[in-house]
Amino acid sequence: MNKPSLQLNDQEMRDLAEMAAMVLALFGTATPENQQARVEQWHKLCVKILGTAKATPSIAPDMEMNPDCGYYFFKRPYLEKAFFEDCLDEFRDSIFWSELVTRLAEQSLMETVGEDTFSRLTEDQRRTRCASMEKALWNECMSHGIDRLVFMLPPEES
Amino acid sequence: MNKPSLQLNDQEMRDLAEMAAMVLALFGTATPENQQARVEQWHKLCVKILGTAKATPSIAPDMEMNPDCGYYFFKRPYLEKAFFEDCLDEFRDSIFWSELVTRLAEQSLMETVGEDTFSRLTEDQRRTRCASMEKALWNECMSHGIDRLVFMLPPEES
Repeated sequence: MNKPSLQLNDQEMRDLAEMAAMVLALFGTATPENQQARVEQWHKLCVKILGTAKATPSIAPDMEMNPDCGYYFFKRPYLEKAFFEDCLDEFRDSIFWSELVTRLAEQSLMETVGEDTFSRLTEDQRRTRCASMEKALWNECMSHGIDRLVFMLPPEES
Repeated sequence: MNKPSLQLNDQEMRDLAEMAAMVLALFGTATPENQQARVEQWHKLCVKILGTAKATPSIAPDMEMNPDCGYYFFKRPYLEKAFFEDCLDEFRDSIFWSELVTRLAEQSLMETVGEDTFSRLTEDQRRTRCASMEKALWNECMSHGIDRLVFMLPPEES
């Protein structure tokens, strides 16, 4: 049986190499616990993709052997304008606000109903009961960002 | 000149398809503004990769045509256990805490030195001057999570 083969034009190869670079950047931030074998497998595939990109004449000039990691990667000036970095920036910003709102709303609900009751709610029930608090928190974030967000410490710690 | 070609074994093809699914999930959360053409180009490449995976006999049973998006995607039961979902969960969690600490520390510095001075600091200067506040905030997050994090509203709004 034939091995799977992906025929790409040069632009697709470049985009795929950027996707591989993005996955490696994600791994640089965080990797799932207890899944080291899978992480290494993905890592190896990304390095293979970057190597194939380096062997593509139109892409090669934008890449170099990175001495720190020991594989071909995009050069720094290229990275500074890379599309995948914009994608990650946008993702980080979006994640921050949505996690902030979701986590604070859930915490508020837990304080209201108590930990026991909270832990027995289904995901759907939590979403429903958090909805109005989430809306209020979104409004706060839209109007004031984190200007009024603080850790309230007891007097002996502050 | 030959087109770039990526020869993959079945496991690599499966991993690559999961990476494509991860990129599409990222795009579902957020895409960079004013870069619609690049987003569409990446989207098309991901769909091509998923289609190539569907044509691989060992992967095909885990995929189906998704009627909502009009391309082959992993089936729901497969997605629930997919490695890339663990990667994204881990990334979301990591991002939330680091963004929270960085943003609150920068806000605190801005309040201390004033907006004008703050805006003239280089990235390195900001990092240096935020370091001790960041350390204190990390300690708070490690000990109490967001238990003591609140929006302080003026009396007329709360």
